Amino acid sequence: MTALSADLGFLLSRTSGLVVRASNAALAAEGLRVRQYSVLVLACDSTAGMSQRELAQQLGLDPSQVVALVDELADAGLVERRPDPADRRTRLVVATSAGRRTRQAAEARVAEAAVEPLRSLTEEEHGTLRRLLGRVVADAGSPADARAR
Amino acid sequence: MTALSADLGFLLSRTSGLVVRASNAALAAEGLRVRQYSVLVLACDSTAGMSQRELAQQLGLDPSQVVALVDELADAGLVERRPDPADRRTRLVVATSAGRRTRQAAEARVAEAAVEPLRSLTEEEHGTLRRLLGRVVADAGSPADARAR
Repeated sequence: MTALSADLGFLLSRTSGLVVRASNAALAAEGLRVRQYSVLVLACDSTAGMSQRELAQQLGLDPSQVVALVDELADAGLVERRPDPADRRTRLVVATSAGRRTRQAAEARVAEAAVEPLRSLTEEEHGTLRRLLGRVVADAGSPADARAR
Repeated sequence: MTALSADLGFLLSRTSGLVVRASNAALAAEGLRVRQYSVLVLACDSTAGMSQRELAQQLGLDPSQVVALVDELADAGLVERRPDPADRRTRLVVATSAGRRTRQAAEARVAEAAVEPLRSLTEEEHGTLRRLLGRVVADAGSPADARAR
């Protein structure tokens, strides 16, 4: 064991890498990678669709990265861009019916993919991780953080 | 909140992204990025130095990525490659004294950098995260996993 094994940043990125790698392998069957999948889920779950700016904020990505991901999903017929009725200058990313079907199949694969890399944790510990990390992620999207940037 | 907020893979990669971004910003003062820093720590902490293969395994990176990182650290005078006395075909990555000084300064910066993105967790919860993720990472390096690959 080295100092890295006490370094939370290292542990987070190493664990994340293990799960992302497994998820990408599992998602290949749906023609997706993890980041595309995350955009698809957000597009499916927002009633009216989501702007690229909001997608970038929720995913912690640069807007240019989100544009590329949305382009890929649109080329695959899984999402489309529609003008926002509330603001014609903004376009919303909306899932197509094919996108909704793909998301459903992909969701099961992603859940299954995380099992193997996280096999040394109990179900309860999965819940603990979800709770702690969920708080960090929710906090990152909070106004206090936006102010700090 | 969307389905992503229950997706451990998403939560891990989002949290990891927050900490890596903060750490990269903090390490810039030492001329380092997180992955170079991790290589430097491993090189400093192994008495005899560490082979690039072992570095790749511990960091979960491709050997080619590790070669590039070691090249960068060697160019900066922070590590050097020395023949392994036990096997002349292998070269070990060893920290220089400049590397050890840089590591010490960088370590304080990295620890400090993680505070802000993880501010919504208590000290005890930091410990819980460290313990759970440490188990996942240790397990990933175990022979069972090597067999499964």
